[in-house]
Amino acid sequence: MTAEDARFMALALSLAGRGLGNVWPNPAVGCVIVRAGRVVGRGWTQPGGRPHAERRALDQAGAAARGATAYVTLEPCAHHGKTPPCAEALVAAGVARVVSALEDPDPRVSGKGHALLRAAGLEVETGVMAVEARALQVGFLSRIERGRPWVALKLATSFDGRIATQTGESQWITGPEARAYVHALRARFDAVMVGGGTVRADDPLLTVRGFTPLRQPVRVVASAALDLPRDRMAASVSEAPLWLVHAGAAPQEAREWWAAQGAELIEVAASGAGLAPEAILAALGTRGLTRVFCEGGGRFAAALLRAGLVDELIGFTAGVALGGEGRASVGAMELAHLADAPRFRLMETRPIGGDVLHRWLAV
Amino acid sequence: MTAEDARFMALALSLAGRGLGNVWPNPAVGCVIVRAGRVVGRGWTQPGGRPHAERRALDQAGAAARGATAYVTLEPCAHHGKTPPCAEALVAAGVARVVSALEDPDPRVSGKGHALLRAAGLEVETGVMAVEARALQVGFLSRIERGRPWVALKLATSFDGRIATQTGESQWITGPEARAYVHALRARFDAVMVGGGTVRADDPLLTVRGFTPLRQPVRVVASAALDLPRDRMAASVSEAPLWLVHAGAAPQEAREWWAAQGAELIEVAASGAGLAPEAILAALGTRGLTRVFCEGGGRFAAALLRAGLVDELIGFTAGVALGGEGRASVGAMELAHLADAPRFRLMETRPIGGDVLHRWLAV
Repeated sequence: MTAEDARFMALALSLAGRGLGNVWPNPAVGCVIVRAGRVVGRGWTQPGGRPHAERRALDQAGAAARGATAYVTLEPCAHHGKTPPCAEALVAAGVARVVSALEDPDPRVSGKGHALLRAAGLEVETGVMAVEARALQVGFLSRIERGRPWVALKLATSFDGRIATQTGESQWITGPEARAYVHALRARFDAVMVGGGTVRADDPLLTVRGFTPLRQPVRVVASAALDLPRDRMAASVSEAPLWLVHAGAAPQEAREWWAAQGAELIEVAASGAGLAPEAILAALGTRGLTRVFCEGGGRFAAALLRAGLVDELIGFTAGVALGGEGRASVGAMELAHLADAPRFRLMETRPIGGDVLHRWLAV
Repeated sequence: MTAEDARFMALALSLAGRGLGNVWPNPAVGCVIVRAGRVVGRGWTQPGGRPHAERRALDQAGAAARGATAYVTLEPCAHHGKTPPCAEALVAAGVARVVSALEDPDPRVSGKGHALLRAAGLEVETGVMAVEARALQVGFLSRIERGRPWVALKLATSFDGRIATQTGESQWITGPEARAYVHALRARFDAVMVGGGTVRADDPLLTVRGFTPLRQPVRVVASAALDLPRDRMAASVSEAPLWLVHAGAAPQEAREWWAAQGAELIEVAASGAGLAPEAILAALGTRGLTRVFCEGGGRFAAALLRAGLVDELIGFTAGVALGGEGRASVGAMELAHLADAPRFRLMETRPIGGDVLHRWLAV
């Protein structure tokens, strides 16, 4: 990898990032086309997943693509889907060299894109900035490799770990900057997910507000019995999709009512009193979600943590004490020993407004 | 204030900081003597509170003090105590100008030091870097102005705000760097304070370990009934002072037993089931403590927070989830509304080892 290759791949990765949250079920890819040291085309996966990044960059480059180098953050696709494959498009445009960060683990691609390029006589270099590319594409890789989306859990708490007072007051614990940042985060995820308890307590909208996102994230509510308030969530289905994950035992009447409002109903296996968290995530992966932002509540967060299904933690700590009767950010986990507790590695901490932002990855 | 004055006062303040935690009941003062732009003497209050900063700096300067400027972080004392007053010493040494950050609120001084210097013909400038000087001397100022020490509350928790598992396991939630930092913090305070519940649960030593401090902080345990394990705390009285704050109803036998071990017994008023937190702090202030570092537990922390007696919060957040059955960092606070919750302003957040350090001041 030359310094020039690293520089252009870093640019391609930053373009790829623009797609996060609005390209599922496709990966967020970036592409930069460089001829004689000059960028002649830039592209990234468009909202909804098409056109692909390579197509956009080639269209921008036009004739300048001939003899150029294309930097792609993921192996170009080789299968005929809704549009001709990108690998063929790169060949047709006369690109001489392709620098790629990652092989696409999707079995429909998985080396075939690189092979097609090589067979056509292009020089292909792979694995350039692969670590950074994996970090950017954790959601897509998780869906392909683990069959479930990447899960980030948000916890916005008082410094004693409470999300509401005893009487349920929770507006506002964190300040306006942290709350605005949460809306920006929602827009970078395919879906926002909560447990039924949070809907019963707060009936939150869970939409991106304060700016217009390219695509409103899917709202996922996990509620075994579908015993949810039929109010704000139901009224806003035209604004943002609503997926209700429930158990087989949920009343027929509730299913029909929610379906009539336009919600999508997803039945999964139950586990004891609630839904099996693994089954919820598998169902979301099957439907194409790659990045899910879970905003609680305490009981659902505990179930995900206990099952080892939280990949990333995003904490906001406010300078306020609510006391031990307040609602806990994480419910009962039934840990026998401290050694059994899920551990996370600190990635970042910084002030955000008057609060602390901290971000962690599962160990 | 000239740039030179600010520079030398900043140096005096940094010297003053060396005394924090080991000069009570005296203030931690710094003094720099400058002649023709050169530092000819530096001093700070010595462990136990004497000699004073000015005395040390004058001794170092010797004859060079004649015609010099003395920078002091607090008004020089004017009353005859165990030693002659510093104001007289500055006059006797021939100092020409005194630059002072703060008037000493101690009624025995309170302007008399500055007046003595002026009467002797010295040029006196006051209020130089007063904000910084107040921040450094919050402990001493609190004791004089509010009759109680400055209280910092430490909370070392999992990211869901727990200090131990359900079964009481708490070693170790935070990492070695955070724990070493706690020992460094203890050494900067006059006393380490916990509630009786923490002693019953953990029987902690509460001493500074890992390095040798100039003075071990006083260990204060607030326990209305003195129902404490008679083990590690009692065995370590020769290593660090132990003050037991109790209520009048504490059994005579317990008082006598602890007194026989060398502990100091302090009786204060009770408030309901526990001790009145105001009474505890007033008793500590009367005994000369200026800076107290409270390390919990949850019930005691809640009592201090509810009474508005926590001046500073020092949080350590670890990347581990313990769940809702874990022991809460802050106990029941009986808040009726979120608006009643005590609020704090963020001063600092940074990684410390694998944990997050955050520091807040009461609003």
